[in-house]
Order: sequence, then C-alpha cells, then structure tokens
Amino acid sequence: MNNSYFLDIAENLKPNLIESTVYPISEVEIISDKNSLHGWKVNKIGEIKSLNKRSFDTNESFIVDFGDHNVGYLNLKINSTGSPQDAPLRLKLTLGEVPCEIAEPHENYNGWISRSWLQEEIINIDILPCNLTLPRRYAFRYLKIEVIATSQKYNVQFEEISCTTVTSANTCNITPLPESLDKDLIKMDKVAIKTLQDCMHLVFEDGPKRDRRLWIGDLRLQALANYYSIKNYDLVKRCLYLFAGLPEDNGQIGACLFLEPKLLVDDTVLFDYSLFFVSILHDYYLETKDESTLNDLWPMALKQIELALSRVDETGIVKDAEGWWNFTDWHPDLNKQTPAQAVLIYTMKQGKVLSEILNDESSTKYLEENIKFISNAALEYLFDEEKGVFTSGKEKQISWASQAWMVLAEVFTKEENSKLLDRLFKINPKINMITPYMYHHLIEALIISDKKEKALELIRSYWGEMLKDGADCFWELYNPQNKFESPYGSNLINSYCHAWSCTPTYFIRKYFI
Amino acid sequence: MNNSYFLDIAENLKPNLIESTVYPISEVEIISDKNSLHGWKVNKIGEIKSLNKRSFDTNESFIVDFGDHNVGYLNLKINSTGSPQDAPLRLKLTLGEVPCEIAEPHENYNGWISRSWLQEEIINIDILPCNLTLPRRYAFRYLKIEVIATSQKYNVQFEEISCTTVTSANTCNITPLPESLDKDLIKMDKVAIKTLQDCMHLVFEDGPKRDRRLWIGDLRLQALANYYSIKNYDLVKRCLYLFAGLPEDNGQIGACLFLEPKLLVDDTVLFDYSLFFVSILHDYYLETKDESTLNDLWPMALKQIELALSRVDETGIVKDAEGWWNFTDWHPDLNKQTPAQAVLIYTMKQGKVLSEILNDESSTKYLEENIKFISNAALEYLFDEEKGVFTSGKEKQISWASQAWMVLAEVFTKEENSKLLDRLFKINPKINMITPYMYHHLIEALIISDKKEKALELIRSYWGEMLKDGADCFWELYNPQNKFESPYGSNLINSYCHAWSCTPTYFIRKYFI
Repeated sequence: MNNSYFLDIAENLKPNLIESTVYPISEVEIISDKNSLHGWKVNKIGEIKSLNKRSFDTNESFIVDFGDHNVGYLNLKINSTGSPQDAPLRLKLTLGEVPCEIAEPHENYNGWISRSWLQEEIINIDILPCNLTLPRRYAFRYLKIEVIATSQKYNVQFEEISCTTVTSANTCNITPLPESLDKDLIKMDKVAIKTLQDCMHLVFEDGPKRDRRLWIGDLRLQALANYYSIKNYDLVKRCLYLFAGLPEDNGQIGACLFLEPKLLVDDTVLFDYSLFFVSILHDYYLETKDESTLNDLWPMALKQIELALSRVDETGIVKDAEGWWNFTDWHPDLNKQTPAQAVLIYTMKQGKVLSEILNDESSTKYLEENIKFISNAALEYLFDEEKGVFTSGKEKQISWASQAWMVLAEVFTKEENSKLLDRLFKINPKINMITPYMYHHLIEALIISDKKEKALELIRSYWGEMLKDGADCFWELYNPQNKFESPYGSNLINSYCHAWSCTPTYFIRKYFI
Repeated sequence: MNNSYFLDIAENLKPNLIESTVYPISEVEIISDKNSLHGWKVNKIGEIKSLNKRSFDTNESFIVDFGDHNVGYLNLKINSTGSPQDAPLRLKLTLGEVPCEIAEPHENYNGWISRSWLQEEIINIDILPCNLTLPRRYAFRYLKIEVIATSQKYNVQFEEISCTTVTSANTCNITPLPESLDKDLIKMDKVAIKTLQDCMHLVFEDGPKRDRRLWIGDLRLQALANYYSIKNYDLVKRCLYLFAGLPEDNGQIGACLFLEPKLLVDDTVLFDYSLFFVSILHDYYLETKDESTLNDLWPMALKQIELALSRVDETGIVKDAEGWWNFTDWHPDLNKQTPAQAVLIYTMKQGKVLSEILNDESSTKYLEENIKFISNAALEYLFDEEKGVFTSGKEKQISWASQAWMVLAEVFTKEENSKLLDRLFKINPKINMITPYMYHHLIEALIISDKKEKALELIRSYWGEMLKDGADCFWELYNPQNKFESPYGSNLINSYCHAWSCTPTYFIRKYFI
C-alpha cells in the first residue's frame, strides 16, 4: 500500500550525485605482519608513473593504493604491447576497503552472507587499447589486478587507473573545528565525516560496499551526524518520506528499503527500527522546524507507537521472542526484551514532544498514559533491586545494552541513571557491546548523565582504536578484543565504511567544542 | 603503407549482419561415455519450459543445448524468487561448441595458446529482474550456468535464455541438392554450409570462436565453397581489397588481418599464404569476370610472385628454413620446402592465366620462364626417381603434403600424377595430414587426376567421420586416429567451426552432382 503522495515528495528530493576523479597514489605490497590489523601490513613499493609504463604478462599482478576510501566506478585505460592483440585479455580484479580483502583468498570465505559481496570481477577484453569503465560501483582503497591471460604474442599495460567517486554529500561548507581541539579528535571527526559522506548517495546507505540500502537504524544516526556536519536536510526528509510511503501492509515502517529495480520495502521488520521513525522525525523537526513534514508524517509516526504497544502484555512489558524481531546490537547472545522496552519508552517520549508541538491533545494524553504504564512496568518487572541493574528476558540476562537504553529512556532521574552507569561499569556484564551503533547509545547515555569525560574516554578507546588500526572510514563492527570479529562470520565481509559508525562527528561537534 | 583507395572500396563493401533469435531446445546432462567424442555423451534430461520455471540456489547449475552451432550474443532474462534480492547474484557461464568444453574443468587447460579463448564468464548482477545481453560474441551449442552465489533470502530463475545469432551469409537462395544424392552427402553439404555461414561476418573469419580473424589460407577455401553455395561475391572482393590495402612494408600480403581496434595487418607472414592472394584473385575473376577488381589488384598479385621468387636459390629451389615460414599443415614434423615450391608453381600458373587475360605480355613471359625454371628444379632436385616420390628438406622427408601439392602444381602430366598418387597411398608416408585444410588439397589432387571415387571415399572417411562424431560444423583439426588432437595442445581449444573445413560443399556441388 504505497503512498504516492509521499513517494512523489521523496522523488522530487532525489539528490544529484557529485563526481570526482581520484587516482591511486602508489604501488604497494601487502605482507604478513602480526602487529597489523588482521595480520596484514601495506608497504609502498613503487610509483604509479612507473607502474603505468610497465608491461604485464600472464600470471603477473600488482596492487595499487588509492590513499583513502573511495566509493565509485573504476576506470582502466589498457593497452597491449608487443605484437597485435591476438587473443582476449583476461583479468581478475579484487577491490578492498582494507588489506585483508586483497591479501586473503576469497575462495576461503566461509561467512554466512552471500560471497557475492566480495568485490571481485573476472573480465575478458576482446579489443585493446580500451578505456574501460566498469559498470558496478565499488567501495575500496586497494585494487589488485591479476593478469590471468594475455597470449604468447602480447603483454598488457595499464596506462591509467582511476576511480570516479560519487556522493550526494557536499562537504565544502562544513564548519572547521577549532584548532585548539585535540589532534586525535580532529582526525576522528574527519574520518567520521568521510564515513558519512561515502554513505550518502541517492539515500543514506548503511554501507557503500554492502548492502547499500536505506536502513532506518543507520538513518537515525546518519541524520544526527549530518545535522552537525554536512547539513543535507533534504536527504533526511527524502528518506523519511520514502519510509512513510512504503509501509508494510499493516502500516508498520519496514527495517529497510530497496531503490532498485523499483522502490520496495524489505520483508524485514524490527520492533526498535519501526519506532525509530518517530525518533528521526523528532530529531528532524527540532533541527529544521519543518512543520509541513511534521504534519504529513505525524500519523505514520503515531502508528508505529500504536503497533508497538500492541506487542505489550497486560503487565506493560514488551513480549520477548526468539529470532530477529528487534535489533539493538549484533551480539549473538543478547536478549532484546529490555532494550526494546526502553526504545518504546524513549520514542514515546519523543512522540509526546511532537504531539505537544502539534497540539494533538488526544495523542499527548495517550502517550502520557502509556509512557507511565510502560515505564512503571519496566521498573517493576525488569529492574533487579538487589543487583541494581535491569535484566532482560526469561533468563534475566544482564547486558550493557539494557542499561544503556534504559538510561536513554530516562525511567530514572539523572542522578539515579548516573549511579546505574557506575554500577554497569563496575559489574562489566559479559554480554558486551560489539557495534559502533551500540557504543553510540552508551556514549549518549553517559553524556546525558553528566559523564562527558567517561564518554570521551570511551570514544577514544573505541573509535580512536580503529584509527590506530588504520581506519580510513569507521566500521560496521569493531571489537577491540577480537579484531577479526564480523557480523557475518568473516573479516572479509565486515563493512569498513558503515553509516552507524559515523557519530563521533556528532559527539565532538555537539558536546566537545 | 596502407592503400586508402583499396581500403575505401573494402569499407564500402562492408556487409550488414543478419540477426536471428534462437532458443535452447532442452536441458541436458553431459556424462562420461568412452564411446562418445572425447569421452562425453549428451543426454536430454528436461524441457526448457520447465527449466524456465525452476528456482536455483547457490551452487546449483544446469546445462542447456541449443540444438545446433550458433554464433552470436547471449540473452538472459533473470528474476529472483523469495524475498527481495538482498545481495548481488554471481553466475559462472561456460559456453562450448562441443560437450568437452562444458564437461572438462577449464582450470586443467594446459595448451599453448591463451586460456582466454576458453569461453567462460563470471558475472555479478546487482539488480534483478534483468534482461541481460552479454557484450561478447560467442560460438557455441551448449551453455552451462552455475549459480555461484545468491543469498539466504532469494533464489534465481532463468525465465528466458536465447541467442541473437549474427552472420553476413544469406542462405535463402542456395540451390537445393538433387534428392537422389546420397543422404550422407546431403547432410555433409548442409554442415559444410553451416560452417561457412557461421564464419561469415564482417569478413570471412577463420573460426568464430577463435581467433575470429581474416586469414588468407582460410579465405581461399571459403571463397571456393562460397561460389558453389552462398554466392556472396562482395565479401570475397572486400577481403581481397582489405589484404591488398594492408600489405607489409615490403609489399608482401600478410597472413591475416585484424579489424579491431583498427584495420591492421598482423606481423605473421607465410610464404604460401602470401602467394594465395594470386590464387584467390584468379578464382574470383573466373567466377565473376570482375575486370575492375582484376585490374586494381593484379599488380599486388604479381608482387607476391616476385617476392616469392626472391627466396628461390640459383638452382631454382625455394630456400628452406626453421620455424613458421610456410604453413601447409599443422603437422609438427612436416618439412615445408617442397610444398612451398609446389605452391609457387601452382600460383604462378594461376597468375599466368590472369596476365594472359590482361594481355600483360611481359608478365606472361616472366611467369612462363619462371614456371619452367622452378618446375624443372623441382623435378631435378626434389623428385626421388628411385622411390618415385617428391622429398622435402635436407632430410629428404617424404610426406603426403609434398605429393599432393606437387600434383596440384601439375609438374607432371595427369597420367604421371595419377601414378604418383597411387604410389603415395601405397607408401602411406608417416608424415600424414592432420587438418581438413590439407585433406582438401589431397582431394582436389585426386579429382584433377581422374580419381573422383578415391576422392569421395576420402571425403566420406574424413568429414563423414566427423559427422559420426556429432559435428554440427566442421572442425579446425581432426585426426580420426587421435580425436583428442588439437593444434594447440588441448581438445578444449580446437575450433569446432572452422572455415578451412567447409569445402565438402564445394566438392559435392562441383564434382558429385
């Protein structure tokens, strides 16, 4: 049941993509080194100018480094040397955001999502010279070219290699940070903005390598980072109207959208993600005061709360379930009940802000009552008085996520929240956080509980550690204790430029300057 | 030193390609069977209609049979089934003219020409459904599609598979053979014409799978077959002007031409191939009486004879050499000296026919003298009186090729030639013939020596045997004693539709109806 009024507004907000041409900066080798990320170290071994003049025979190969993360289209100017080209040229191209994607044989990949995400191509070229622009978009810093076959009579020369990058982010007018700010934060802000920029295309994508879709959980954090840096309000508006225009049959906002082959909502729905529609609308309105959008989309936002409340039992607790019903974090053992309860309270409070602005009294009353009911239930059934922490699920699991989200839901006072967070760090539950997405929420929880120093310490120990590991953009999943960890069973298919990891620029610019 | 007058004429004769759409006729399996060609047997296992409805998951595959040899572009209409396509689709396509190309792993290929000729593609498709037309031209009957990766959420359906065939051969007006003709010859004629048709594109190609170039040795036989079947005189004329317009620096006609990226003569020159320019012009004029072309190209033809004579020593013998200086046949141990001497005589005689038509008296005299000189030298130095056969090279090698070509050169009378051929079959030299190209010349030698029955027997035992082995078109190399033999060290890279193998239609239509 698409809403064509909403979709027309979204279509009119479709951004132009800004193109630039970038060139590799050096020829490199990638060698085994146990002190480097995933055990791979990059060494410069030559200049691009001399590479462009070299001839390559069957079974020869090289790797180039573009110097930074890029999202775009690969251009190859290829020529033959020797006799006329008497057989097709067969090449294998491998593109990687990080060195392991180049160094580790893709044949060994055994993760649980499709190996088609591994960025590799085998191409046959019948006619040389050629100016080839590959049709697919890649996200990469490193490119390996293997010459699978020339012939006995000719070799091959790569006269020019470049990437036509694309983004809808105009980064020209970003406010410079004060020079007095610590250097590490300046660098972290830059990498965070690059992450956001490389995820901004026709929509806010979750990751430009994979899966290149508009996910609402990512959108919420991208929008926040965007308000403090690139300030592309229209792209947030467009994404809000796209979600509103493509609900599931029951009116629920889907977890993600496809743009191709046609606009389509995925069959994945997540409890927290649907509620974040309220949150994104709330943040967008407070930032822009765009009343027309608020008026248009408020009924869809309210609908998400109503649908979420229908999952609440008579005691006021969100019903738990097996499987992938609520996101929160990628931790495989995390129970989602209490985080879901907290997200419901958090978003109802944001909804109430909007209903008051709209003078929607019946909704305000409805939300007030439910905030009270659900919050009290949380305190009564989910808070363990003895241990002083929230538990989750039948097994009464204690997790970082439950505490962080309950702080954000503000069921306690600021003082009590501060103590809860102290206890959290002391207890240090085994069920930890593994995504930047979840770290974001803990850091926000610390900040609203007047623990800015602790928050900054955590930002530095998490995103700062990624920088030390050579991040050009921030990653989908990062576990400082196990740097091989990925959400999909292989470090080859982590996303090394991932939207939900871009929020250091939000924290730095909102709270630390 | 291109001749732009000649090249302009050639350009104006560029043919239009005729397109047709063909569809696979069944799903097949290819199984090991020692009684079938290369040990592979094809069994029908299903209908295309039901295949089009099936869904395929990661690691599933199928093979379709198009029912006949095709040259053209592959079209795939692909859709996803299940959830929306949440990851690229990765496919491997393998195309084969004969079953071994599908059944044998290409990884095992160890021939000496480029493995890039193996017809395989790995393609990544980001958006389904799609109507995909692959950009490269293939020559094939069988297509294997392997699904390397879908995702856990979707499978893939091949709703329609087709091939847009291309040829410049209009086969509508070919004279039907008399119904009284033996069935095997009717079938052989059909397959020969299909071979010719599938090699006719913007020029006469040697093979549509590989190497797709205009080779003069192939052109000579294609033109002969063409005069008795498809009758596309302009394409022969175009190819003559192309060769004449693109000589080597010394004026010699090259062995082959490239059309892309621009018209270019290859750096391969062969003694016999350059001389065949005379032969093709001779045959073309006799067929068409096109005086303008004869006038234009006669100087280039004469030049080839002059250049060839400059290789003759003072005794009148063509100087022998190591390496690939003269073609004759693919037999690795064949000495080429005597066949080259014979081709020189053969083409000088054809040249003399043309010089007489042109009333070019000085050339006629020049040719007469040289025919006599070179023929006498052949008899004096190359004919072994005792054994009654021609020998070749320092080692005085006795080969089938030397005798066949000397008969075609008509250095003896018809009666003596007939006896020479009798002795040849009796002696049965170890250095035999391995290409249809060389068989053609022996058969022509038999026919002009009044041995039509023996010729027909040989046609049947050679091309007829290919038919029994399942040939849809005739092949580049066929050794009935070793059916795995290929000119390039692997049966995977024999060309199974090869121009020089198309002459049964010429023999049947000229001599046997």
